[in-house]
Order: sequence, then C-alpha cells, then structure tokens
Amino acid sequence: MSSEETLKRLALETLEQDADRIVQLIRVQMDNLTMPQCPVYEEVLDTQMFGLSKEIHFAVRLGLIDREHGRSILADLEKQVSDVHEAYYEHREQLKKANK
Amino acid sequence: MSSEETLKRLALETLEQDADRIVQLIRVQMDNLTMPQCPVYEEVLDTQMFGLSKEIHFAVRLGLIDREHGRSILADLEKQVSDVHEAYYEHREQLKKANK
Repeated sequence: MSSEETLKRLALETLEQDADRIVQLIRVQMDNLTMPQCPVYEEVLDTQMFGLSKEIHFAVRLGLIDREHGRSILADLEKQVSDVHEAYYEHREQLKKANK
Repeated sequence: MSSEETLKRLALETLEQDADRIVQLIRVQMDNLTMPQCPVYEEVLDTQMFGLSKEIHFAVRLGLIDREHGRSILADLEKQVSDVHEAYYEHREQLKKANK
C-alpha cells in the first residue's frame, strides 16, 4: 500500500474515531441525566461538532477524503446524536409512567 | 517529491493559511474598532483558535507535522493576536490624547 493510501486510511479512521468520541460524550451526558436543554450541554455539543467539521474540512482540502464522504460522516454523527436524544426522552417518559 | 512530502507541505501551508486568516479577522475587528473586551469578540477568537488547534492536532496524529511545529504555529498566532491588540490600544490612546 502506498504511503498516500495509508494516510488516507489513517485520516478516515481518525475522523471516525473522533465522531465516535462525540457520540460517547453525548451518551455519558444522557446517562448522567444531564438535560439536553441545558445551554452548557448545547454549547459543548456545538463546539465538538465544529471541531470535527474543521478536521473534516482540513482532510478534504488535503485530498485525503472526498467532500461527499466528509459530509456523510457529519450527517451520520448528527443522526446518532439525535437517536441518543430520542432514547433519552423515551426512557424519561417511561420513568414518569412507572412513578405514577 | 514523493506524494507524502507533497502532503506534508500542503498540510503546513493550509495550517499557516488558516492562522493568517485568524490574524486578518482580528485586524478587521480592530479596524472597525470593535472592542476586544466584547464577549462576542472573545468567543469568536476562542472558537477560531479552537478550530485551528483541532486541525493542527489532526495533522500531528497523521504524522504530517510534528508536535513541536504544531505548538509553534499556535504560539506564533497568539503572539500576532497580542501584537494586534497592543497596536489597537496604543492607537486608541493616541486618539484620546489628540482629542484633548
């Protein structure tokens, strides 16, 4: 494998790792029942998403990943974050019912 | 030149370009006499610095630049931002004296 291919693979793995880390961060927040409406939470999530989008844009400019792939990493992450949010709300609803 | 060397050079040029862009942004803010004490200004600067540090860290992890070089890009930028701030305050002091 050429060094360029190795770099491209490494770039992709690194970006996906970072996206996973953001999902983990969100999960930990949800598990600790920190409210997603909390402004600090929103800010942390926005900052992390901004950081990842900077990395992706940088990788695209270097030709290490194509623009479309970069977009799909961010879109997948947004989907996962929204799934975690939904699971959190559902869980909260169930707790409310159980406590009635 | 090997494709890896080309990539390393491109990575460095891209990071330096981004650092320059932040300095330009600060200059424009100062020229428009936006106060550096303004919280929105601080936030914009912090966000931009955070974005650049993410790009640098990403490039370091890919082995495109070494850690030390990455640090020096950020340190240079901080120095330049502080120079622009100082020039702004001096200019303001001179305006005050001229208006007396």
